[in-house]
Amino acid sequence: MAAEYNLQPTALVGIIMGSDSDLKFMQDAAQILKHFEVPYELTVVSAHRTPERMFQYAKTAADRGIKVIIAGAGGAAHLPGMIASLTHLPVIGVPIKSSNSIDGWDSVLSILQMPNGVPVATVALNASKNAGLLATQILGTGDDDFADKYKAFKESLKDSVQEKINKLSFDWNNEFDR
Amino acid sequence: MAAEYNLQPTALVGIIMGSDSDLKFMQDAAQILKHFEVPYELTVVSAHRTPERMFQYAKTAADRGIKVIIAGAGGAAHLPGMIASLTHLPVIGVPIKSSNSIDGWDSVLSILQMPNGVPVATVALNASKNAGLLATQILGTGDDDFADKYKAFKESLKDSVQEKINKLSFDWNNEFDR
Amino acid sequence: MAAEYNLQPTALVGIIMGSDSDLKFMQDAAQILKHFEVPYELTVVSAHRTPERMFQYAKTAADRGIKVIIAGAGGAAHLPGMIASLTHLPVIGVPIKSSNSIDGWDSVLSILQMPNGVPVATVALNASKNAGLLATQILGTGDDDFADKYKAFKESLKDSVQEKINKLSFDWNNEFDR
Amino acid sequence: MAAEYNLQPTALVGIIMGSDSDLKFMQDAAQILKHFEVPYELTVVSAHRTPERMFQYAKTAADRGIKVIIAGAGGAAHLPGMIASLTHLPVIGVPIKSSNSIDGWDSVLSILQMPNGVPVATVALNASKNAGLLATQILGTGDDDFADKYKAFKESLKDSVQEKINKLSFDWNNEFDR
Amino acid sequence: MAAEYNLQPTALVGIIMGSDSDLKFMQDAAQILKHFEVPYELTVVSAHRTPERMFQYAKTAADRGIKVIIAGAGGAAHLPGMIASLTHLPVIGVPIKSSNSIDGWDSVLSILQMPNGVPVATVALNASKNAGLLATQILGTGDDDFADKYKAFKESLKDSVQEKINKLSFDWNNEFDR
Amino acid sequence: MAAEYNLQPTALVGIIMGSDSDLKFMQDAAQILKHFEVPYELTVVSAHRTPERMFQYAKTAADRGIKVIIAGAGGAAHLPGMIASLTHLPVIGVPIKSSNSIDGWDSVLSILQMPNGVPVATVALNASKNAGLLATQILGTGDDDFADKYKAFKESLKDSVQEKINKLSFDWNNEFDR
Amino acid sequence: MAAEYNLQPTALVGIIMGSDSDLKFMQDAAQILKHFEVPYELTVVSAHRTPERMFQYAKTAADRGIKVIIAGAGGAAHLPGMIASLTHLPVIGVPIKSSNSIDGWDSVLSILQMPNGVPVATVALNASKNAGLLATQILGTGDDDFADKYKAFKESLKDSVQEKINKLSFDWNNEFDR
Amino acid sequence: MAAEYNLQPTALVGIIMGSDSDLKFMQDAAQILKHFEVPYELTVVSAHRTPERMFQYAKTAADRGIKVIIAGAGGAAHLPGMIASLTHLPVIGVPIKSSNSIDGWDSVLSILQMPNGVPVATVALNASKNAGLLATQILGTGDDDFADKYKAFKESLKDSVQEKINKLSFDWNNEFDR
Repeated sequence: MAAEYNLQPTALVGIIMGSDSDLKFMQDAAQILKHFEVPYELTVVSAHRTPERMFQYAKTAADRGIKVIIAGAGGAAHLPGMIASLTHLPVIGVPIKSSNSIDGWDSVLSILQMPNGVPVATVALNASKNAGLLATQILGTGDDDFADKYKAFKESLKDSVQEKINKLSFDWNNEFDR
Repeated sequence: MAAEYNLQPTALVGIIMGSDSDLKFMQDAAQILKHFEVPYELTVVSAHRTPERMFQYAKTAADRGIKVIIAGAGGAAHLPGMIASLTHLPVIGVPIKSSNSIDGWDSVLSILQMPNGVPVATVALNASKNAGLLATQILGTGDDDFADKYKAFKESLKDSVQEKINKLSFDWNNEFDR
Repeated sequence: MAAEYNLQPTALVGIIMGSDSDLKFMQDAAQILKHFEVPYELTVVSAHRTPERMFQYAKTAADRGIKVIIAGAGGAAHLPGMIASLTHLPVIGVPIKSSNSIDGWDSVLSILQMPNGVPVATVALNASKNAGLLATQILGTGDDDFADKYKAFKESLKDSVQEKINKLSFDWNNEFDR
Repeated sequence: MAAEYNLQPTALVGIIMGSDSDLKFMQDAAQILKHFEVPYELTVVSAHRTPERMFQYAKTAADRGIKVIIAGAGGAAHLPGMIASLTHLPVIGVPIKSSNSIDGWDSVLSILQMPNGVPVATVALNASKNAGLLATQILGTGDDDFADKYKAFKESLKDSVQEKINKLSFDWNNEFDR
Repeated sequence: MAAEYNLQPTALVGIIMGSDSDLKFMQDAAQILKHFEVPYELTVVSAHRTPERMFQYAKTAADRGIKVIIAGAGGAAHLPGMIASLTHLPVIGVPIKSSNSIDGWDSVLSILQMPNGVPVATVALNASKNAGLLATQILGTGDDDFADKYKAFKESLKDSVQEKINKLSFDWNNEFDR
Repeated sequence: MAAEYNLQPTALVGIIMGSDSDLKFMQDAAQILKHFEVPYELTVVSAHRTPERMFQYAKTAADRGIKVIIAGAGGAAHLPGMIASLTHLPVIGVPIKSSNSIDGWDSVLSILQMPNGVPVATVALNASKNAGLLATQILGTGDDDFADKYKAFKESLKDSVQEKINKLSFDWNNEFDR
Repeated sequence: MAAEYNLQPTALVGIIMGSDSDLKFMQDAAQILKHFEVPYELTVVSAHRTPERMFQYAKTAADRGIKVIIAGAGGAAHLPGMIASLTHLPVIGVPIKSSNSIDGWDSVLSILQMPNGVPVATVALNASKNAGLLATQILGTGDDDFADKYKAFKESLKDSVQEKINKLSFDWNNEFDR
Repeated sequence: MAAEYNLQPTALVGIIMGSDSDLKFMQDAAQILKHFEVPYELTVVSAHRTPERMFQYAKTAADRGIKVIIAGAGGAAHLPGMIASLTHLPVIGVPIKSSNSIDGWDSVLSILQMPNGVPVATVALNASKNAGLLATQILGTGDDDFADKYKAFKESLKDSVQEKINKLSFDWNNEFDR
């Protein structure tokens, strides 16, 4: 999961998080983007410990070619909302149930409940995979290639369910699929 | 707020809601899109009372030219998630604190907490204005015109704050802006 | 727990769930129905990954002889409510505390808080055993055989408590039962 | 809403509530049953102030011809669960947000979270209309007449939405229904 | 912990719980009563599985000499409130975080939020030790012997803290106690 | 409601609250005690603004003849727990939903969740009437006169329900009471 | 409440809030500081609409003589935490229950739950008066004049309670103060 | 971590907690103060088991040279608020998620929601490290030496993030820092 990315085309999606301890929650976003061949970058940006870096990141992202930013944070999670205040790009917020969180409620509410004027597209608790999917959908509104790949992905969801249906049919009565 | 739209170019954003009683919460999304000159449509689609209509709406939206769907619902709010399951387009969910809601928690959780594979871009409770803004940001990733308008909008936010700063400076000591 | 079911009479109860990972929570419903000799079927139907399958399941259930549907789901749990929107049969919803759930609140609220017009008979978190019991009670309103079996079951609850009373009486003073 | 009922056929559904102050929340259940021509009775039974009456009501209901009991209560709402412990009939619980309730959470949890062995079919907060609908669905599992009426009711839900769609189409662009 | 109790004077406190699985949470109440030499009895009474037993227990308790009843239950916890509805004795409720509980909220709310007219003296989640203490305090209002023992108990609380103070003083600067 | 009390026998119950603004929530406790002819006193004791007074009140209560203390407070409600730490008398806590409360949760939790060793007998939110009833029950464990009065009170609860049953029977079918 | 402040000594406390609509919640902080003759300034600084202004405010505050910053915000309340990330001064956060708040939980959690390394001294919901008091206490650690004034203030709290005690003593039996 | 402190200058910060079992949550406060060379003391003070000790501690703290008190407690956490009621010094409250806590909500609310007139500077759940930092910031308002050390600490936060950025850059594409 690594150095090969240095030769990629310019990143379209920026994945940022407050600490490297969030990486285990956030790397699913990267894996999904890799699946869709969406160029991305990933680094640490802390709203509370490196506010100037956060400003720089948000202010320069569009000019560097970034189209969508995915920001994950836990507890009093200010990173997604502050990034959204500093750029015109769409920002996807991933609430993380980190160790200092009250069951995830703090993470969810401090990302979701943004005031009028500055939206953050919030996904479910710890749902960085969905953040990667949403970023691809967003890019798909301007690029049919991504949209087509996403359509294929949606079909594949059905196939994965079909496997489970088949597996259960050995042990349980299933008149619907008979 | 009306008939003139019939001559608009094809809608890029579809705004749907479960009942006309949701219109008072959802019309801010329409007003924002009008401000940005984003063509949109608006109608009632009920997940629970008109499930076939919901299927039709979601299945045909992309072919009719829709790029983003904004869906508002309250209580056990299934409309945004079900639309997302039926289309590859990005779906923005607006949790509504309707009369049958437990303080909005049911609306928020049943839109936000989507399983892996089917994201909904959730905004704050009743925040349909932010849904309209987010739709414009998303379109801006593929259309510089919308992106430029959005940048201007962000500047205007500062101006509105400046007015308030000035107003308060008459009555309260403010050494920062002196 | 298996192939023998293929020779059963037509299923009266359909047990469905969003994923085979829910089986460990849902199989108690099947065991209870087996205890009451209520013919049932069990399979996977995902609201979000196989919406067309969900439509088909709900639309054909009554004609296939199903009288009651038990649907289990977690997180933004849309399966029970959407099934209820697509059939006239009573639907029992089982909120599951799945791995992506916020302590079960999302599952409970997105199943329980259905709008007027489309009820879901909701049972406690993870209480699929009670879902099986409720299905039997419902069938018992039209079939005295099931009602009689259920009466016997209720008597057996007392017997199981009596055993515990006896067991504790060895170690603890109990003047009430003396 | 009254004396004419004295000549009705024997009640199939019993609607009970803890106090006459709950009547304003519970009478929608009665109205729905009247719509479906389901014979019902309605009275006050308090778990906490008239526990003997509650025992009598639950113990005699089946013999009097009752098939389903709808019980509404607020706060520490014990009526539905206790009725369920005393009869083999299915019991529908309606959590009421009464004046002494903490936002309805107490009512919901003390009805929903029944232990294994004694289910209560819980509907949404204050949703007595859905309780009446669910009772009719349950009766419909053993009586095709009620099932047919319920099917017609579900169709009527679509018509009511269609009216709203038409009304909004005058003022808002709606390309889907064009 | 056992047979010796059979020779005790008549029990003044009755400790009841819904299942023997609650014993691990409830036995601290017994231990405290034993410490204060308050005669007690302990058994299983299930509101939902043995409602007639519950009635009998509550109706006969006062005549058997019981002065205070301690009732523990989890989930939709109806035992304490129903006992309180059936006797004029004071009832102490212990909310238990049992396996089917939503973090204890259901247990707490369904015991605490009793309607006007039927109080339950509720203690903290799982706090059966405090239930035993409260029972002793209550008996102490009519019996100076218990009151005097309770005063001594309160003094002992200070001693146990003093030990901790001394222990910490070896490792940490403590100018207050110097 | 007044001066006549000065000639009463020594108060057995002390009712205290943090502010005179709590009087409207707490006076029901006084009315119930008056009904049962339990001598009581009522005054303001603030844990946070008059901590010394609180100490004095708690330390002298038993010697002045007080048998039970009822303490009401809202928000971070420390009065009941601190009184309980300072006296061996039983303390009844009334959580008040005051203007600075978060829906009453703060009041409930900071009274209910006392640590092992120092119980507070907590009643429902704003339920000062139940606090008065519980105080009478407690006194009844040592004084048959109060116990007898309480038994009569419980009978009167049934009568009040019977009136409501009769009233509803005019307008609604009631086969149970026929 | 106004122009006279322009001649004050340099402000020691900066009171900031996200919008002039927060002024009604925040002005109690100013009134308390005025009472203690603590020089202060008050203005609007929006984290989300004027992030650059927020940076400037936080970065220059210490050099302008500010010793403590009071920041009030509602919903996804990022202002206090972001200010704390940008200055070494102590920051007091006031959670405001603004119109877009979910009962204040979002405001409380997004201010309180700051990660290790960047504290915010959080006060109760809407408790700007306490924010002003805390600021004075903080200044009192380095300035005996403020500490002495604060001691006097604490005495005055007792006097205000004494008035209420006297008032109630006319109507209610109060043996404690006799 | 120990005896060497006995030769320290007089403590400026007092760290207290309800039990030695809280030490594992509270010792981070001590470590931070040691880092900043702020003299401190640490001991056990229980609001509920040693109320007189609590009074003594709070009443004598200022005269002994203490400038700031850090108080940690869990469940119905009364220690911070009661200390604040008894001293004019600023009090920092640390809500602890102790074993008898309902997910920490009780600890948070009973410390945070103090009434007007008696503030407690509350930090996040279990965040005793932040309590130590806040105490240093407060002392820094009157002592430039502490303020300067705190500024250096804030710089060091950035360095720790930079290390993580570098570490991640080996494995992940990072165009921002290139």
